[in-house]
Amino acid sequence: KPPSSIDQLPKKVLTYGERSELCTHPVTKELFKIMHEKETNLVVSADLKTTKEVLQVLKKIGPHICMAKTHIDIIEDYNPEFVTQLCEIAKKHNFLLFEDRKFADIGNTVKLQYSSGLYRISDWAHVINAHSVPGEGVVKGLKEVGLVKDRACLLIAEMSSLGNLATGDYTVATIKMAEENKDFVVGFISQKKLCDDPTLVHMTPGVKLECGKDSLGQQYLTPDEVIGRRGSDIIIVGRGIVQAHDIVKAAKAYQQAGYLAYQQLLP
Amino acid sequence: KPPSSIDQLPKKVLTYGERSELCTHPVTKELFKIMHEKETNLVVSADLKTTKEVLQVLKKIGPHICMAKTHIDIIEDYNPEFVTQLCEIAKKHNFLLFEDRKFADIGNTVKLQYSSGLYRISDWAHVINAHSVPGEGVVKGLKEVGLVKDRACLLIAEMSSLGNLATGDYTVATIKMAEENKDFVVGFISQKKLCDDPTLVHMTPGVKLECGKDSLGQQYLTPDEVIGRRGSDIIIVGRGIVQAHDIVKAAKAYQQAGYLAYQQLLP
Repeated sequence: KPPSSIDQLPKKVLTYGERSELCTHPVTKELFKIMHEKETNLVVSADLKTTKEVLQVLKKIGPHICMAKTHIDIIEDYNPEFVTQLCEIAKKHNFLLFEDRKFADIGNTVKLQYSSGLYRISDWAHVINAHSVPGEGVVKGLKEVGLVKDRACLLIAEMSSLGNLATGDYTVATIKMAEENKDFVVGFISQKKLCDDPTLVHMTPGVKLECGKDSLGQQYLTPDEVIGRRGSDIIIVGRGIVQAHDIVKAAKAYQQAGYLAYQQLLP
Repeated sequence: KPPSSIDQLPKKVLTYGERSELCTHPVTKELFKIMHEKETNLVVSADLKTTKEVLQVLKKIGPHICMAKTHIDIIEDYNPEFVTQLCEIAKKHNFLLFEDRKFADIGNTVKLQYSSGLYRISDWAHVINAHSVPGEGVVKGLKEVGLVKDRACLLIAEMSSLGNLATGDYTVATIKMAEENKDFVVGFISQKKLCDDPTLVHMTPGVKLECGKDSLGQQYLTPDEVIGRRGSDIIIVGRGIVQAHDIVKAAKAYQQAGYLAYQQLLP
């Protein structure tokens, strides 16, 4: 007996190019376009403690990534000129900037944290993320700053760390919060694909070529597991690249592993 | 019939002085001592955007608070000299410093965010707080930095904002995480007393002399409700003081309301 409606047909996996065309948010439209053109679903987490190290790493591996993830608040010699250079490298190598701030306060506070202070994150980060634990006010507060600047937010629906509490009803409530704020929330930090909307992006941290964990509860998955089996869209790789002997070689290896896993899903 | 064991006797409410003597962690020992001596359970949230404003407010209301809560990352003209002055004012007026950073990442990252970057939070903040959502790694990571410096951490077990997800099992897991890390976790950000251990402190944000809410989901409770009925130990007041016409008068009013509610609980 044939399926009674198109909804019951197996979902066709769309290419990044097709998804870019479906997106109405400028950031995801651009992100999927970059992923398509540069053939990469790799985000590097440049968690380094000096401006020089961050810029050097991004200059070298820029051609292999679709986005760079920063923790601006761990850089010991931060200065406004650093952000100028960061933006130049991002433009030259055609990747986006994602400040992994994990905003997690009430709306009034995150508004100030996002727009103000020394880092003025909303001025330069195309993408930021937030925990859903404070309730919808966290999204509303960030949106009051980010919407007019065409910025985008990811909600943290799941985490990679041992014993984390972003599970079950918490994850369900987070998905709902994202779906009700699609003008600003463009996807998830998650361990797998959580919803079928092709305009939402799923990004997964804690990725290494070999599984394992660190001494503080971080748990690693492989690119093939994350993209191929769990249906996420993007692998976020930190120590697997920045602590490698040859970071360009490592970035290429992750780019290839992630992209191959994606290609094998296509019809 | 008399109670069969001392556990079944009604709990005697201890004074701040008695609780200070029971504490083994230097930060809570000091905090309860200050609360006892200065007759205040008031923490001010100095969420202002310039160093000058923050320092001016704390100079004026220093005599009325046991602790100042900061969001160092919203200050637009932050500089290391500011922290020096902040510490001097805190010492002069005998209050502690609490950076409301709401750490919420994996252990390896929060370690860097706490110790490094421009703000070097672990160098000056007696108290920081963390969300429990990343799992115990967040506490372990922070502890690797803070323990040797005699710093203390509060876990966010409940929030004041509308629709927040820090409820039910999430709160229960957070209490467990605190109880298993008492060498570093000294209490909770919560909406009420969550456990009977007199060496753990409960601090409640979202306090105003009149109930109400803001436009981004913050929900306010009164000092009497928080201390008198819900059994929390400390009221955290932000806009109720810093946006008042006369901030000293406002600080005095909150100090008196909070302390009176505490005194009425004593035997």
